[in-house]
Amino acid sequence: MPQLTDIEIAKQSQMKPITEVAQAIGIEEDDLELYGKYKAKVAIDPQELEAKEDGKLILVTAITPTPAGEGKTTTSVGLVDGLSKIGKKAAIALREPSLGPVFGVKGGAAGGGHAQVVPMEDINLHFTGDFHAIGAANNLLAALIDNHIHHGNQLGIDSRNITWKRVVDMNDRQLRHIVNGLQGRTNGVPREDGYDITVASEIMAVLCLANDITDLKEKLGKMIIGYSFDKKPITAHDLKAEGALTALLKDAIRPNIVQTLEHSPAFIHGGPFANIAHGCNSVIATKLALKHADYVVTEGGFGADLGAEKFIDIKCRLSGLKPSAVVLVATIRALKMHGGVDKKELGPENVDAVINGLPNLDRHIKNVQEVYGLPVVVAINKFPLDTEAELKAVEEACEKRGVEVVLSDVWANGGEGGKDLAEKVVELAEQENNFQFVYDEEDSIQEKLDKIVQKVYGGNKAVLIGKAKRQMRELTELGFGNYPICMAKTQYSFSDDPKQVGAPTDFNIEIKNLKISAGAGFIVALTGDVMTMPGLPKVPASEKIDVDAEGNISGLF
Amino acid sequence: MPQLTDIEIAKQSQMKPITEVAQAIGIEEDDLELYGKYKAKVAIDPQELEAKEDGKLILVTAITPTPAGEGKTTTSVGLVDGLSKIGKKAAIALREPSLGPVFGVKGGAAGGGHAQVVPMEDINLHFTGDFHAIGAANNLLAALIDNHIHHGNQLGIDSRNITWKRVVDMNDRQLRHIVNGLQGRTNGVPREDGYDITVASEIMAVLCLANDITDLKEKLGKMIIGYSFDKKPITAHDLKAEGALTALLKDAIRPNIVQTLEHSPAFIHGGPFANIAHGCNSVIATKLALKHADYVVTEGGFGADLGAEKFIDIKCRLSGLKPSAVVLVATIRALKMHGGVDKKELGPENVDAVINGLPNLDRHIKNVQEVYGLPVVVAINKFPLDTEAELKAVEEACEKRGVEVVLSDVWANGGEGGKDLAEKVVELAEQENNFQFVYDEEDSIQEKLDKIVQKVYGGNKAVLIGKAKRQMRELTELGFGNYPICMAKTQYSFSDDPKQVGAPTDFNIEIKNLKISAGAGFIVALTGDVMTMPGLPKVPASEKIDVDAEGNISGLF
Repeated sequence: MPQLTDIEIAKQSQMKPITEVAQAIGIEEDDLELYGKYKAKVAIDPQELEAKEDGKLILVTAITPTPAGEGKTTTSVGLVDGLSKIGKKAAIALREPSLGPVFGVKGGAAGGGHAQVVPMEDINLHFTGDFHAIGAANNLLAALIDNHIHHGNQLGIDSRNITWKRVVDMNDRQLRHIVNGLQGRTNGVPREDGYDITVASEIMAVLCLANDITDLKEKLGKMIIGYSFDKKPITAHDLKAEGALTALLKDAIRPNIVQTLEHSPAFIHGGPFANIAHGCNSVIATKLALKHADYVVTEGGFGADLGAEKFIDIKCRLSGLKPSAVVLVATIRALKMHGGVDKKELGPENVDAVINGLPNLDRHIKNVQEVYGLPVVVAINKFPLDTEAELKAVEEACEKRGVEVVLSDVWANGGEGGKDLAEKVVELAEQENNFQFVYDEEDSIQEKLDKIVQKVYGGNKAVLIGKAKRQMRELTELGFGNYPICMAKTQYSFSDDPKQVGAPTDFNIEIKNLKISAGAGFIVALTGDVMTMPGLPKVPASEKIDVDAEGNISGLF
Repeated sequence: MPQLTDIEIAKQSQMKPITEVAQAIGIEEDDLELYGKYKAKVAIDPQELEAKEDGKLILVTAITPTPAGEGKTTTSVGLVDGLSKIGKKAAIALREPSLGPVFGVKGGAAGGGHAQVVPMEDINLHFTGDFHAIGAANNLLAALIDNHIHHGNQLGIDSRNITWKRVVDMNDRQLRHIVNGLQGRTNGVPREDGYDITVASEIMAVLCLANDITDLKEKLGKMIIGYSFDKKPITAHDLKAEGALTALLKDAIRPNIVQTLEHSPAFIHGGPFANIAHGCNSVIATKLALKHADYVVTEGGFGADLGAEKFIDIKCRLSGLKPSAVVLVATIRALKMHGGVDKKELGPENVDAVINGLPNLDRHIKNVQEVYGLPVVVAINKFPLDTEAELKAVEEACEKRGVEVVLSDVWANGGEGGKDLAEKVVELAEQENNFQFVYDEEDSIQEKLDKIVQKVYGGNKAVLIGKAKRQMRELTELGFGNYPICMAKTQYSFSDDPKQVGAPTDFNIEIKNLKISAGAGFIVALTGDVMTMPGLPKVPASEKIDVDAEGNISGLF
């Protein structure tokens, strides 16, 4: 039997009406805004449910990943289906995928194999329009900035110091650096500008961290769009923009509900970048899920040093969320890579390499247990070539730490392959924990950075170089010193050097740039240039995508 | 009692569930893709209904308008409610409004007073996402063009001769003229470029003229994006783009159904520009409406010289649609303007001015009757300051031509105010007619242009100046000689000079530019520069727009 592609598996599945999926966790049809039969927005403000008890929040994170990723989303989807299978009322909360990359290298993405979220074509294309709404709001603000300058620039905006970029949800390198406002006085004021992909918009991060529509409007108003000639920050509020931006986002702020292949409810909402932003689905979706399910599975971007740290220090800190247990996803392939094996040689059995790679897993385990104060289980996302001996090496090492290793076979077997993991997660979530942040709000920017580097990365300290020193001083003076930090660092190493795999020690992290996301409420610390507008490859995935006369899409994977 | 604003009237209305509105004209819930409770897409291919008899198609058009417009949409909405009120199974087919202008001068638009389409905030903001989908498809194609050049330009695209622009659904003058691809070899290839507003995208026109998804894909593939160094047209098909573009448009091609304040079904779908495109809602929506209602009211952009002519010569010609009667909307204010009165003096009674303005109305009547071969009724869209004597002058003049004048009071009274018009329309639609096009497909481009100028505008001939002569030769050589013509001319005069109000004679129309919309299937003839990217005013409407904690929008009007 030829192996089916993700989209073929997804299409073979019989979805249930979304009304039925929602009803199963107590969300009535009247509280749904349907988008067709299999997608809906939930029109409940979670604050109305304050009296209702919260379920347990389970964070899925990973060891330091390979470029192919270790299957966090697939594991998360399989875990929620496993929880459902063992009779628990469970839901999942995930990020929405971005449209642009679908036409680039990778096609669509919403889990994989028999652990997917559906309808996958819709989720990967326009879904319920959230990203388009965010793009429109972002670009309205951009238009208002240039319109203000065009009509006399009363606020004295320095057009050389506008930090607000336009966005489009497309991989379009041609727009990275542009000059606009050309061809005379009726057509704007010439200046240098550029585009980001929509998920990099601060509005994406704001939407994902807002507690309700009033909070959203307030955060939108606080966003800094640039600086005046006398170096004062100019905000969206100064342009009287936050009301109109909120109007554009009034539907987008409502969580979307869809289903897994096995009909577990899936809240898929928001999708901020995991480098220049915090990389988690919306606070509102997570809170709403917790009010309706006993177990809510969610994930952070990249490995546990980045995604889990930001999930805790940004999302949980700003929202009051508290996780009950952590699933640390690892693959034998990634452990071999951390053991020093070349990317092309990850296939054949190599127990020594696995053992040599274990210090990476070990540091992540220690971080979750000792730094974040949470119980943890290691989930090995099973690949066909993994051998018994390799798996055994991981189990033995973890046993020494008192951590269990569970084999997750959800790609091939869906919820059935996630039952063991589900049982373990339920057990861990019952344990008392010492959940804590990595740093305190009151710590200085330098102290926060140092604590992240020392406690989480295992390095010596954060070294601010170039303009970052001045930026630290300025941000502190502007009153942003108590904001949490959003680290924009390579995901391929604990250090800032992607080649330092495993568990490097005795290194510093160089911070080259500090940027304020005043609306979202964090300071972005950049260790290098981050690409915020991808490009398309020589043969884009778009060339293979097609639609037949009945509207069926092919080639999305 | 203070007069209510449009949005206040709209909010006071009790909408029916859209399932009920659709059911009333025989569309079952199973054929609807709901977008909330009051919006839906209809998932029926009208070709499946071929055996079903069509209703009568009523075109609402207008005399040469004032800048404020004469109320075609309001009259159309009131007419369909009037038809419903006199017991007819009636529906309306209209264009979707564009998002950008909502934040500019005018706020939202979906009829007015008691003749509106609801939910008006949704319709004016993202609605069902059609325009976002069109924008994404347009910008994917743009990204593919520049990506092709970046990776070696195998097709030899001349970057100085790319006619495909990027779009955004925002009034953003800053983007009219840009240079992109700056800052080195990893960031594209520098070139001059520019943005249009989304409704100006050829994809909008294509979507509105496509008969089904296969036709859509074929038309998308034919779109010309620019020319090679050896001056050959390069199409979207050459970039293997049409499959992915169709995937992005698979939902957008389905007609949206909403309702009027009085619950008549309203198909609101597509909204191409009325100058560089044909300015009508989608063919699919009109055809679907005709399969379900006995009377379908629709409209063209601008006055009857432009909107009605394009409706007939482009939309009807390419789709096989045949209208049964025409409503010609006039206002006393506009007649006074055509009678030579200054815009600021249109308020006070001035019977002489009305009489002096009648030749404009008269030429439009003659055009509808003799050139288009259709029965016509004049609808006076009533304004509070209109006097008996003024109205009488219009009636007497029309009587001489054997044309009835009906007072339409739908702004103030909804369907009740449109009953007289509805009765008359039913009567006219029963009459035999001699429906005909203005020119034949086989006519040369020059002959087509001359026939429009002579038969419709009352001028002498079309004079091609500058590069237009060469363009005519080239387009003919490329095989586009048999395409219909889309005139892009001022809407404020029969001539190409907006100051020539009334019924000017003895003039030529100068054609400065001929552009091919090879996918949509027409040649655009431009008499001057057309603004395809609006700007925002000094105090944009966005400043007044707000949302309360419950998500209620204010300030949209």
